[in-house]
Amino acid sequence: MGRESFWTTDPDEHLRVGKGFVLADQPTDAVYGFDGGKRQGAKALAEGAGLVAELQEQLFAAGSVGDRRRVLLVLQAMDTAGKGGIVSHVVGAMNPGGVHYAGFKKPTEVELKHDFLWRVERETPMAGQVGVFDRSHYEDVLIGRVRNLAPADEIERRYDAINDFEKALAGDGTTIVKVMLHLSADEQKERLADRLDRPDKHWKYNPADVDERLLWDDYQAAYQVMIERTSTEYAPWHVVPADRKWYARLAVQHLLIDALERLDLDWPRATYDVEKEKKRLAAS
Amino acid sequence: MGRESFWTTDPDEHLRVGKGFVLADQPTDAVYGFDGGKRQGAKALAEGAGLVAELQEQLFAAGSVGDRRRVLLVLQAMDTAGKGGIVSHVVGAMNPGGVHYAGFKKPTEVELKHDFLWRVERETPMAGQVGVFDRSHYEDVLIGRVRNLAPADEIERRYDAINDFEKALAGDGTTIVKVMLHLSADEQKERLADRLDRPDKHWKYNPADVDERLLWDDYQAAYQVMIERTSTEYAPWHVVPADRKWYARLAVQHLLIDALERLDLDWPRATYDVEKEKKRLAAS
Repeated sequence: MGRESFWTTDPDEHLRVGKGFVLADQPTDAVYGFDGGKRQGAKALAEGAGLVAELQEQLFAAGSVGDRRRVLLVLQAMDTAGKGGIVSHVVGAMNPGGVHYAGFKKPTEVELKHDFLWRVERETPMAGQVGVFDRSHYEDVLIGRVRNLAPADEIERRYDAINDFEKALAGDGTTIVKVMLHLSADEQKERLADRLDRPDKHWKYNPADVDERLLWDDYQAAYQVMIERTSTEYAPWHVVPADRKWYARLAVQHLLIDALERLDLDWPRATYDVEKEKKRLAAS
Repeated sequence: MGRESFWTTDPDEHLRVGKGFVLADQPTDAVYGFDGGKRQGAKALAEGAGLVAELQEQLFAAGSVGDRRRVLLVLQAMDTAGKGGIVSHVVGAMNPGGVHYAGFKKPTEVELKHDFLWRVERETPMAGQVGVFDRSHYEDVLIGRVRNLAPADEIERRYDAINDFEKALAGDGTTIVKVMLHLSADEQKERLADRLDRPDKHWKYNPADVDERLLWDDYQAAYQVMIERTSTEYAPWHVVPADRKWYARLAVQHLLIDALERLDLDWPRATYDVEKEKKRLAAS
């Protein structure tokens, strides 16, 4: 468990996918490890923000003196599940100078002429950075599978290709934190209705959102296969209950803090002679 | 003046470079337009953060429905002037999903084999984004000039090339906000000394910082020429007093808010039939 003081029990064991995982059995409204409601959740998030910012700065500092390690947060979810809020409220607590954000939309014509991982590889974080994938290569086995955007054998090939890709990233020092925000169909309906009710949210709604919603069960099945096939020791999946936005944010913040803490970071030692530099500076 | 309520007078006229500008005459410790100290400044910054975040989201929303406009914040300064703090505290208030941050360090060998603007063009913001250049193409007429990294006629050529480049960006819908953080040599000395005194800041210090410091006057002269040659109607320079970090942050936040407000943004209207979509959603 991380240094945050507000967890009553470590939520990790509930969030991290284990053997025999069945997505359909997972609650979407649980608040594992947290004893409190929305207001306490928001307060806890603000408390954790300082810690995540400090840890990220230490990672950045380490990167500046040759440490090759970095962290990659991968966010996948059904529409309205709260990816945007997590980027804003959790990722947003870190210094933008050390964060590499990449949002993956419908691939362009050029991207489609390359292997599906081509556009993704180019956005992987550098040493010292926290990378954030807002959607990712997993779209290629989610919408790709549900909408038959590639032949079945190509979809099959991708699971192994993803594992090899992530194994290579991990082998070169990337801690991969994969998160699926797990939303109920009812909650999605309410959130889409809210977007339609509020003129300031109309731009967030797209008629295609309902088209996708009609394929809810197919998507859940595709997520199940994805999790089974790509939850590995070096890049496990976490399934975060997302019906309560405040909890999902807190849980993802925790996963990020936990990943950063496991790097056992500290401020790097000077790579120069401090006393000599003090004299040079004084004389300048 | 922007919608922020805490300015006593509009700081713009003091910050924006006018005809006959002389950098050496500009104070580094002024707090133009703000009646208060550090504590009030921090409070004001937090108040402005909500506004800048909302405006940025409206820009992003506009970009999502075809508006080509974007904003580019260019930050230039001597070491320790506070660029990092501005990225963290001012830029950090916006949603990372709508911000494109680019830090420019010493050019790589490949970058040097291209025109100096090559690596910069690739990092310009897309429609709907706020771009942030942490250092920029101006390094090529600052350290480039002071250290003779290119022949004199090439340095000369660059001022016009920069103006043409920025004119094209502005012509395609980019509001360019150029900021020089103006620090005193004494304040820099204190800040470098602080980095040497604190083990948690040792990584931020580089012996080359003192080498550059010894060329202080040459850099000030290069900034003067840069401002004279590249402060244009479509991309004017702002010189922000930076001896007080809290004020520099507040002033840059204001310049950003002001640029966004001049776009006269609002939430985009729905591009679909709202009532029809409500029915489709209800039936789903």
